[in-house]
Amino acid sequence: MQLHCFSQSGNCFKVAFFIRHLGLDFEPVFIDFFGGATRDPAWRAGTNAMGEAPVLVRDDGRRLTQSGAILSWLADRHGRCGGGDADERLEVLRWLLWDNHKFTSHFATLRFMRSFMPTAPDPVVMAFLRGRVDAAWRVLDQHLAGRDWVVGAAPTIADFSLCGYVFYPADESGLDIAARFPQIDAWRQRLAALPGWADPYAMMPGARITPRWTDA
Amino acid sequence: MQLHCFSQSGNCFKVAFFIRHLGLDFEPVFIDFFGGATRDPAWRAGTNAMGEAPVLVRDDGRRLTQSGAILSWLADRHGRCGGGDADERLEVLRWLLWDNHKFTSHFATLRFMRSFMPTAPDPVVMAFLRGRVDAAWRVLDQHLAGRDWVVGAAPTIADFSLCGYVFYPADESGLDIAARFPQIDAWRQRLAALPGWADPYAMMPGARITPRWTDA
Repeated sequence: MQLHCFSQSGNCFKVAFFIRHLGLDFEPVFIDFFGGATRDPAWRAGTNAMGEAPVLVRDDGRRLTQSGAILSWLADRHGRCGGGDADERLEVLRWLLWDNHKFTSHFATLRFMRSFMPTAPDPVVMAFLRGRVDAAWRVLDQHLAGRDWVVGAAPTIADFSLCGYVFYPADESGLDIAARFPQIDAWRQRLAALPGWADPYAMMPGARITPRWTDA
Repeated sequence: MQLHCFSQSGNCFKVAFFIRHLGLDFEPVFIDFFGGATRDPAWRAGTNAMGEAPVLVRDDGRRLTQSGAILSWLADRHGRCGGGDADERLEVLRWLLWDNHKFTSHFATLRFMRSFMPTAPDPVVMAFLRGRVDAAWRVLDQHLAGRDWVVGAAPTIADFSLCGYVFYPADESGLDIAARFPQIDAWRQRLAALPGWADPYAMMPGARITPRWTDA
């Protein structure tokens, strides 16, 4: 299968890491996000109308987008990491949705604006995002107290989804996870010890970008 | 079953509308959101650690949160509106995730800050949110061109999720849907003609609040 992706995208990392964890392989197809690829009408028409990465092209040729939907499809297909019973599967879905709504979303936006955008972000917007990031990260940090994994006794796609952005260098987001969120820090170390893990920049195509801005 | 909810929450409306569409009923339990209920540690410990509405209490006593997870559970349980086959179910999940990530999320935040918060929102933050709302709403508007429903030939929980905030008065968000997004406007009229529909303020507890702020 092909995975359209680029190294700075934690949403792509979620899928790349899980494919490798399953013992599978993917052919990476570079998305030139910073060159405007996902805003190009032709790319949207042919690859993803939502204008987002990643895009998985299955062996049957069908394109699939939204990291949470791709993770769910892979878990179902391989009978792994989807949750042990109906209650766990529902709990996995609950965390996938929350990740998209509150956890990954604001953090990814903050990091991109702070490190990769050509114009300096407005400090008022950054403060707004930072407040929302803090609130969401506190919820997950508290949830992980006394737990190894987000749902149940083993890793599920809830973990693979929520961990999308936790392995990137702290200077990109300005968030020192180890200092601020000790449970998330311990959890990400457990994840990094799983089969298939590698640094996001080693796993996907696209040159490193030196963070452009700092906190005002 | 009980639905913890309040009238201003479109995320609650998604579930309330779908329960009624299924021909079922719910006992509403008022969440005093504006009185700080969801930030109360006791409420979080006892009702929802994520600090969010809605919360469904099933007949077996189990609490379920995240509107998308509740909608999925209801669709599975009643065999309705979940998608006709595996491909459609995956497509429904894709739109549920995108709704939480891009469509409902920024719009709900913008509307709450503009109309219901005790302090005036920063115009820089509002402009930031409005840009993200516009980008997401354009994607859905284009998707609905030539389609009656978001996935397949009949309403699914993707429609019930995405429509959470489209029936509230335009002066709350400042977005004139009818003028700006004609396909979304036509789609919401189709939804309003479905069995079970009612105005959100008629469907859930909580007094109306006059919008507090306007666009600077």
